[in-house]
Formats: sequence, C-alpha cells, structure tokens
Amino acid sequence: MARKLLYNGTIVTSNTNNEVIENGAIGIEDETIIYVGATPEDFASYDEKVDLKGNILLPGLVNTHGHTPMSLLRGYADDLHLQTWLEEKIWPLEAKYTPEHAKWGAKLSILEMIRTGTTTFVDMYDNMDEIAKAVEEAGIRGVLCRGVIGFGSDELRQSKLKEAADFAKSWNNGAGGRITTMLSPHSPYTCSPEYISQIIDKSVELKVPLHTHMSETKFEVEKNIEEFGASPVVHLDNLGFFDRPSLVAHAVHVSDEDIEILAKKDVKVSHNVISNLKLGSGIAPIGKMLEKGVTISLGTDSVASNNNLDLFEELKAAATIHKGVARDATVITAQQALRMATIQGAESLWLERRIGSLEVGKDADFIVVNTNQSFFYPKHDPVSHLVYSGSGRDVKDVYVQGKQILDNGQFKTIDEEKVLYEANRMSKLLS
Amino acid sequence: MARKLLYNGTIVTSNTNNEVIENGAIGIEDETIIYVGATPEDFASYDEKVDLKGNILLPGLVNTHGHTPMSLLRGYADDLHLQTWLEEKIWPLEAKYTPEHAKWGAKLSILEMIRTGTTTFVDMYDNMDEIAKAVEEAGIRGVLCRGVIGFGSDELRQSKLKEAADFAKSWNNGAGGRITTMLSPHSPYTCSPEYISQIIDKSVELKVPLHTHMSETKFEVEKNIEEFGASPVVHLDNLGFFDRPSLVAHAVHVSDEDIEILAKKDVKVSHNVISNLKLGSGIAPIGKMLEKGVTISLGTDSVASNNNLDLFEELKAAATIHKGVARDATVITAQQALRMATIQGAESLWLERRIGSLEVGKDADFIVVNTNQSFFYPKHDPVSHLVYSGSGRDVKDVYVQGKQILDNGQFKTIDEEKVLYEANRMSKLLS
Repeated sequence: MARKLLYNGTIVTSNTNNEVIENGAIGIEDETIIYVGATPEDFASYDEKVDLKGNILLPGLVNTHGHTPMSLLRGYADDLHLQTWLEEKIWPLEAKYTPEHAKWGAKLSILEMIRTGTTTFVDMYDNMDEIAKAVEEAGIRGVLCRGVIGFGSDELRQSKLKEAADFAKSWNNGAGGRITTMLSPHSPYTCSPEYISQIIDKSVELKVPLHTHMSETKFEVEKNIEEFGASPVVHLDNLGFFDRPSLVAHAVHVSDEDIEILAKKDVKVSHNVISNLKLGSGIAPIGKMLEKGVTISLGTDSVASNNNLDLFEELKAAATIHKGVARDATVITAQQALRMATIQGAESLWLERRIGSLEVGKDADFIVVNTNQSFFYPKHDPVSHLVYSGSGRDVKDVYVQGKQILDNGQFKTIDEEKVLYEANRMSKLLS
Repeated sequence: MARKLLYNGTIVTSNTNNEVIENGAIGIEDETIIYVGATPEDFASYDEKVDLKGNILLPGLVNTHGHTPMSLLRGYADDLHLQTWLEEKIWPLEAKYTPEHAKWGAKLSILEMIRTGTTTFVDMYDNMDEIAKAVEEAGIRGVLCRGVIGFGSDELRQSKLKEAADFAKSWNNGAGGRITTMLSPHSPYTCSPEYISQIIDKSVELKVPLHTHMSETKFEVEKNIEEFGASPVVHLDNLGFFDRPSLVAHAVHVSDEDIEILAKKDVKVSHNVISNLKLGSGIAPIGKMLEKGVTISLGTDSVASNNNLDLFEELKAAATIHKGVARDATVITAQQALRMATIQGAESLWLERRIGSLEVGKDADFIVVNTNQSFFYPKHDPVSHLVYSGSGRDVKDVYVQGKQILDNGQFKTIDEEKVLYEANRMSKLLS
C-alpha cells in the first residue's frame, strides 16, 4: 500500500470550517486521504513526496448538470431564441447522432473537465454505455443517467425506460465505485404525469435518485400552469418526485411557494448560471434559495449553451451576477461559491461522505492550481483568487481516488490529440 | 526594412465586414500591416515567415477603463458594500501608496494584460510618470490620464490639475506613438462644477480628450439630482463636457433621456460589466445604448473589483448577461461583443485609424490564440469560440506596432519573476 505526501502547498479544504492551511500537506494511501494538516512529523515515512511549491490544492470540482456528447455542437449555433435554437439547429443534428458521436463527444467533454479541474460530473443523455465506458477509461467520476423524453408511442416510452433502468442497474457503483446512477425524466413538459410516475416507481425499485430539468424558462412554467394547474415544482411534488432523493437543474423561475417546497423536501438545485444567461432564460433566485436552506451546486449544462465546461467560470459568474442583480456586493461570497462547486456539489449527488472536501477518510479527489502567475499575486486570500481571478486553465494536476490523471497539464489516461481529431471528424459528419 | 509574414492561420479581422479568413496570412513591414488575405503570391519574398499552424490571429484587445496600480490590492477585500469597501479597505491602503507602489502595481497589471491579449489599455490614476515608463518598457500601448479628485483646498486642486496637464502634455504621443493622453476629473460627485469646467478648458488648450467615471451607482445618480437638479449625464452635458471628445466609464444608471444625450454627443461608453456586478452596482442598459448608436467598448476596471484583467472574461460576460436580463438570446451577439473589444475600443480612444482591426496601413497590433485545445474544437465558428469558449490564458503570441512582446506565453520585454516578486513585496508594505 503506497503512501504519498503532497506538501508545501496552500490546502483549501472546504471542510465545515472552510479551513485553509498555509504550508500545508495532504497524505494519501491508495484511494484514501489519511492526513490533512501542517507538514507531518512522520514526513520521512511516506513512500513518495511531492513538493507543491506553494501552489493551491483544493477538492476536485463537482459539475452537477450536463450533456457530454453535445460538445460536438460547440459554436454550431449561438445567439438564437431558445425554440429556434432547439428546433432548427440542435435537435436536427442530435437526430443524426450515432453511438460513435456520443462516444467522442463525451470524450471531448471529459477531457475538458479534467483539464479545468472537474473530478465529478453529472451526465444526462442517451447511449450512456459509451459515456460510462469513457468515464471508466479516463479515471474521472460520473453520476450518470439515461435521460428519457416521453414523446411518441407507449412502446417507445417503455423501451426508453427499460434502457434507462438497465443502465442504472448495471453501472451503479461501476468503474471501481467512480460511477453512480440516477433515473431521469427529461422534464415535466416532455414527460406525461403517468410516465413520470412510472419513472419514480422504478427509482424506488432500483434505489437510485432522480434528476430532471425544471423551471428553466418562464414560458415552460406558464405552460405547466395552463396544462396542469400547477407550477412544475408543485406538479412534481404532487407526483411524489421529491419524496425521492432528487436533483433538479435550473430552477430559474420559481416562486416563494416553490422555494418552500424545494427546501422542505431537501431537493438539490443545480445552478447553471452561464447557460441560463446565454439561452436568455433568466437568472435563478439563488440568494433566496440559499436563505431558505436549499442545497445549491453548480452545473455548466452542455457545451452547446455555455460554450465550455470550465467550472471556474461558473464560480465567478455565481459570485458576481447575483450581487449585480440584487445591487448588493455582499450576496454570495467567494467562499459560498466555492462550497457550491465542492462540498455542496457532493451533497447534491449524495456523495458527501466520499468526496467534496479534504478530510481524512474521504477519497483522494483533488486538484492543484498553478499560482505562480499574476492572477494569484499578491498573495492575499487564496479563496478569493480561485473564485474571482482564477481559471480552469490554471489547473495543473488532477487526482481522482488517489490516482493522478492530469500531470502538469498533460493527460495521463487520455490521448488528447486523438480525441480532438475524432471529435472534429464526428462533428463534420453531422452537418 | 524587415518584412514578416504570418501564414496558415484563421485571421479574424474585425474589419467593416467582420471578415474571417481561413488559411489566411498577414504581412507586416516594421510597424505596419502591409497585407491581409489568403497566402500571398509573393510568399517567398518575405524576409521572415511564421507558420500559424491553424491558430486564430485577431486584433489586440482594447481595455478602455482601469487603474493599473490597484493590482496590489487583488483579493484584499471582496464581498463588501461599495462604501465599506472604499472607505474602510481601499482608500486607507491607497493613502499609503508611494511612486514605487504605483510602479510595481502597474507592471503587474501590464504583464497580466499582455499575457491575456490586451495590447491597448486606458489608465486613470496618479504617479502617472511611473505608469508611462512601464508602458514604454513593456511595449504595450496606453491611453493615460492623471485622475483628479477635487477634495481639499483650492491650492491642492490646482496643483493636481497642473500635474495632470503637465503629464498630458509631456507624454502625449510618447513611447514611439504608443502613448496618448487625456484629462480626467474622477467623477461629478468628487469634483465641483467649477473644477470640472477648469479641466474642460485645459483639455481644449491641450487638445486632449476627457475621461471620467459616470453614473456607476443608483445612489450617485440620486445624489447628483439632489445636489445639482440633474442626472450626471445632463449635469456634465450642461458643463460642456460632451462638447469635447469624451469617454465615460460605467453608465450603469442612465435614463432614456441620458442615452439620447450620449448618442447625440457621440460620447464613448466603457462597459465594465464584471466590476459593476461584483461591486453590486447593477447592469448597464447596453442593448438600449447600442440601439441608439452609442459607441460601446469594454473595460475591466481595476483588479480590486474584478479581480483580473482578462478581457476575454468581459467578452463572454457582455455577450451573455444582457441575454439573461432581457430574456432574449439574440441580444449582443458574439460578433458584437468582439467588436466592442477591438474596433469599437479603438474608436472609443480616437485610435481607429491606427488600431482595432486588421487592415493594410494600420499598425501591426495583434494576438495569436492557441486553438489546439478542446475549447476550440470542433472547428466551427471561430468568433463564437473566442467569445464563448476562449480565455485570455489561450493567448500565445502578442505583437504591438509590429514588435513581438509575448512569444508562446513567454514575455520578451518583462522579467515576469521579478514583477511577481516585487508586486508581492510592495503589497505587504501596505498592510
């Protein structure tokens, strides 16, 4: 059992006290963190020692909403109304997707997430076996679900649900525990109440959580009220969705009553701030939700509406936009934003006992940021520098479950040149 | 006279037609662009040839508002109400500044701007000789002004104005034409109408433009109306400020009447979107101003309220935030944002005949972005990739007036290690 010590760094722990340890060290044995603190007295006893040279070491970031295969559509269509964008651009191309497209799109996204410091991500798409295999190979951690849209015949619906359930069953705790699974109706506006109820029942049977898109646009909320006499939140609550562990993406247009329900039922909300801006959806009332005790995490959504997967951009956006909207510079501090991308991300995926903070006994998922650059000078508050000045491009090393998968910007588990080439080739086959 | 050709790149010109040339080339002779187009027939006749290897080459970015010496205060105070931030944190530290602080703060900022692709920047501060010398050394381009605050005795005011005028006179067209100057009353709320009038008169005498902060917060606008019976825009217009070439920073809280005046008087507006968010000031009505024909450019403001000088972040913020606020994904396209950071930046500084786009006869100010990374794959619209997916960290080469000052991420005119060290040392002397 190899014991490794990383020392002489600034350790940003994201623990309960938001402790930051200057000249700190972290010890790992195989997959697990065995030490966090000042340089230890038993320094000499470690098999391998890595000098962090003053760089910042922090928990790997957690991206709680996305669709990795859509990276093939980066820059293909921007600056369009949501419906035009979906109906005329995105959906026609997605209709041409083969498993091979999903595979290389997922690989491109996973590469980009590792490069920018994300160690755990949520994915909702189809051809999920390809994505799970890509996660297994790359050494990243994934919480995966086959998203189902309830259009078409009942036969089609049942076959999709079966596919989703089979995937959730066969891959849960896969890839050495790096993969967990969920079930996922796409949204209340694409799945009938009956279909959602069937998916909820299946999630009880399989003991997996639920994930869905919810209240992303004002139009969608109004339509839901018109059709079902209730907001999407009330509607899902009535169906029993929130009696299951559940994660919802967006929650942009939620009322005070909605927020009360989300808080009471401990629904996890994935805040996709940049995607919501770029698609013209609006700005989620995150300050209010935090006040009411809702667990908020950060998601990039897909590359098609972002257009990258650098969670550091979400960190800065989350910590600045709500200040501007509320005209109050004290709203969402740098520290609060960082917790959303670390421990609250883990909580949102029911993984907080394993990841999300640097504490003894947790899995060794962490990243090292190169602070020998202007962006981190002068050497004041490291959390401020990470959130307001840093970039995913500043990440140099990435570890997941104790295994290094990025070393000084170089991938150890991915053939970068091949992924870029194949992703480009597959994208050309779409248009 | 050395002739150099950069070829085999994607040339994003920012010319009137927003032309993008695939497999393009740019030829320069000394300071000047002599060719833009496909690989030229007289390829062999160039003295030096640089293979761009498919990377994107675009005009150097223009940052139209900032305070470079304040980089020493990065991360020193965040998440505070504007007045607390200024009065309890920023001003007490600034009061301790010596010319040595201004010098190393400016050098840290200039280094960061070059590293992230800015080739021209506006600076409003004091100890401006130090800043001008730093510009001269680094090879960047600066539009500089000694900002004056009208508090204290009339003697103090006059001595500041004299200092500002002396600086504007002695450095205008300095550093081989890379420096131009302006005069700058800090703001209508820190300078009396009489003092502003004196500064306007001096600008006529020296034939230099005017720069000021304006309508940054709601409080400031309300106070102006209370004190002078007019909004800051109407107030400045009444004083004759806008009869001079003038650049105003912020314009967050402007009425329809204000916007009419800004348009009619051709006032240039520097949009500091991230700083306005982070300080809780609000979100400027840029869509409306563009509609009325106001020239909008992008500024970072200082590092103390941003917290970096990467203009790519402003590009993405400007192209996404207004979509979210207006709930309209067609507001401010990627191309519009890029024009704000290039040709409209040049127009805002009355330098559009020399910089801001890649056209024959203009100065050779441009940057090369490394597109051999996931962020630029698949190879769809390069402008979308630059604005929505790119980062200043992706800039590899920077040229100003035909001289290369960044080469594959390495500084050619700056001792990076020394600047980081000295900036850190000087900042420690403040607290």
